[in-house]
Amino acid sequence: MEFSSESAHRQWLETQAALPQGFRVGATRFTFTPVEVPKPAFMNLTLIALDRPSPDFAAVFTRNAFPGAPVQIGRKRLAEPTLGAILVNNKVSNVCAPKGVEASERLCAAAAAELGLRAEDVLPSSTGVIGWTLPVAAMVGALPAAAAALQSRSILPAALGIMTTDLYPKIRQAEVAGGRVVGIAKGAGMIEPNLATMLVYLLTDMAVPRAVLRRLLPAAVADSFNAISIDSDQSTSDTVVAVSSGVVSGVPEAAFAEALHRVCRGLAEDVVRNGEGVHHVMKVTVQGAPDAALAKAVGKSVANSPLFQCALCGNDPNIGRLVCAVGKYLGNYRPDVDVSRCRITLGGHLVFADGAFRIAADTERTLSAYFRQAELYESAPPDARGVFRPPISWPPHERAVEIGIDLGIGPAAFTVIGADRSHEYISENADYRS
Amino acid sequence: MEFSSESAHRQWLETQAALPQGFRVGATRFTFTPVEVPKPAFMNLTLIALDRPSPDFAAVFTRNAFPGAPVQIGRKRLAEPTLGAILVNNKVSNVCAPKGVEASERLCAAAAAELGLRAEDVLPSSTGVIGWTLPVAAMVGALPAAAAALQSRSILPAALGIMTTDLYPKIRQAEVAGGRVVGIAKGAGMIEPNLATMLVYLLTDMAVPRAVLRRLLPAAVADSFNAISIDSDQSTSDTVVAVSSGVVSGVPEAAFAEALHRVCRGLAEDVVRNGEGVHHVMKVTVQGAPDAALAKAVGKSVANSPLFQCALCGNDPNIGRLVCAVGKYLGNYRPDVDVSRCRITLGGHLVFADGAFRIAADTERTLSAYFRQAELYESAPPDARGVFRPPISWPPHERAVEIGIDLGIGPAAFTVIGADRSHEYISENADYRS
Repeated sequence: MEFSSESAHRQWLETQAALPQGFRVGATRFTFTPVEVPKPAFMNLTLIALDRPSPDFAAVFTRNAFPGAPVQIGRKRLAEPTLGAILVNNKVSNVCAPKGVEASERLCAAAAAELGLRAEDVLPSSTGVIGWTLPVAAMVGALPAAAAALQSRSILPAALGIMTTDLYPKIRQAEVAGGRVVGIAKGAGMIEPNLATMLVYLLTDMAVPRAVLRRLLPAAVADSFNAISIDSDQSTSDTVVAVSSGVVSGVPEAAFAEALHRVCRGLAEDVVRNGEGVHHVMKVTVQGAPDAALAKAVGKSVANSPLFQCALCGNDPNIGRLVCAVGKYLGNYRPDVDVSRCRITLGGHLVFADGAFRIAADTERTLSAYFRQAELYESAPPDARGVFRPPISWPPHERAVEIGIDLGIGPAAFTVIGADRSHEYISENADYRS
Repeated sequence: MEFSSESAHRQWLETQAALPQGFRVGATRFTFTPVEVPKPAFMNLTLIALDRPSPDFAAVFTRNAFPGAPVQIGRKRLAEPTLGAILVNNKVSNVCAPKGVEASERLCAAAAAELGLRAEDVLPSSTGVIGWTLPVAAMVGALPAAAAALQSRSILPAALGIMTTDLYPKIRQAEVAGGRVVGIAKGAGMIEPNLATMLVYLLTDMAVPRAVLRRLLPAAVADSFNAISIDSDQSTSDTVVAVSSGVVSGVPEAAFAEALHRVCRGLAEDVVRNGEGVHHVMKVTVQGAPDAALAKAVGKSVANSPLFQCALCGNDPNIGRLVCAVGKYLGNYRPDVDVSRCRITLGGHLVFADGAFRIAADTERTLSAYFRQAELYESAPPDARGVFRPPISWPPHERAVEIGIDLGIGPAAFTVIGADRSHEYISENADYRS
């Protein structure tokens, strides 16, 4: 999928966006004045509602030790008999704010009253500035407009509503045996570091019992959202929710699991690709490992190496830094691992084997050309104020730099998806609030 | 110590640089043509020689699983009865190059012949581009000039000789009871990411038995060089060597240990401050921890957080990212730790307690002013080619941003020294080779 304009991308999104049966979504936008910085700001309020409350829902949350109030409430909601709606706001994350839990609970109660649900049927989500307090009165005032906007055709209003500084809405879908899974995401880490949250909502009309969904969701997350590694920061609000309306019955579990996994993997890649500062996506596949945990750790060591990230940004095939990142993890955490059979490839070119680099006269030129053809777009110079701006507002394409690391000592493999590190990242993150 | 010019800094260095008794150093500079990129390049060859080989030496090396050839040889040298000289080259790191060990051994033999030593008395060190092969013939040809330059007055020629793109030479000394410890360092990580090596040489004339020195050196390294955390990358060549000429006897072990520690700590801070891209040094002190390992891990989580590093660079007191970095480590690796008593200060200002931020109307302004006064120098805009250049070539001063994290649950503490993340870092590392 390559898009030439924002409207071409939007057209494609519409083909993905049909809601599964049994769901409605609506969103509204309003202004409020934050207590902390008293000047008008915009907030989106997004509702995802089931036609009838469902017992079949699952969620995984951030493991950060200081979770936001919505995450604390969400964990409690997992014990409820049913889920009836999800209420999402952007702009204010409600993390470590005084009386944050009470504020979110008041909103859930107001949304429930609007929709004819129990308050405990409503799962809250918030993303935005950490530390600010939710403008509860203004949000309650906006609820009727969000409820009035509910419709059962497209998930796009929700995909747009949950965005903060995301460049574009992210939607992925899969169809299986008359049923559908549709997922939306807002970016995290490098993509949305200012607002520091990844939110994902997965809706399906395929009947999947609660216990099965709660087993399948963590498995799907493990090698999708937990396989992306952008800046190693983990937000206080990360949330992935899956819910089934149960309308389409008789779908085999394996078929649903595969569809769920495909949607998660697609959204995870979208999240990486969405980075304002991302010029290259990298896929680091570690194979021949004794176990998948080791394969993942080595892959993350490469994907998180600032030096290799910078080299990748500059189309510099610095294989020394690549080997350094592999050796850093293994030497420090798994000195028992025999590295003598380690082989490393870049775009299929063998660059390291038998403990030494394989560098021919044209290696540098070949690899640099490989990096260049995988570039999402060329860096534009900063403006007069030193600010870098992305040249386009839709996903450029699906190119990636493929890095292969074969440890040669076992059967396990894992692929980590990462990105390079650019001036745009620094600009976005150093210059954001001050 | 604040310096107003490069020459003022050089004058101060000379006051630190007197060699302990029993040592001579010399360096020479020559041109060679690398096989890999056939155009002329400069290399420095530096000799550190003892008046007579000493049994009292110690060394710690990188734990990277792909260590350079000199590190592999250095580990073997620890079993030798004596050390007589250290031979250091810059420009080519001799890491993962075919027949790298043989090349370094040939140089050791040539240096030994020049100095009247056994080849096994010579410890080799190399820093520079990873993957290139050592120009052995050119280096052997330059050895007589390095030997002829040996003198017993100042360590400065060695501090200059081991530099690569370091902004300035780094020397620290301590005097105790008629004896001295003098150390030199070349930077690592962010400072020298291209060349990816930290080399440290610690010379003393105080008599310290080999076994004692090998016990004290790792302890001194633990909370100095192992307490700095710039970009989490660990080079394939990091080396710290300590050697005693044994001339001054009768110094109490505790006094020597304190002097060694002071020199290591000073050099470690110099290494951080030397970063071309460093605008703020941060000292993250974690106290109230159940053990020092946990305190260090939490400190490193903050110091290595790309989001907080960027905020610091922009003088943005983003305490949300600070709390996020603390919670990321504890939640993922130590979910057993009770975080309810965690208190966080920035420059002495309490910003987090009882699970919530402490933000008053003027907090943002106060903290931003605190970041600004700790800035080493202001960012200069990039030149027309988009390249950022540091405005000065000497250490700006010794300011630092002090971050305090009190977990409130134990007696242990640890201080990690880190730095911010700037455009200069990206520019240096993305644009270096290609």
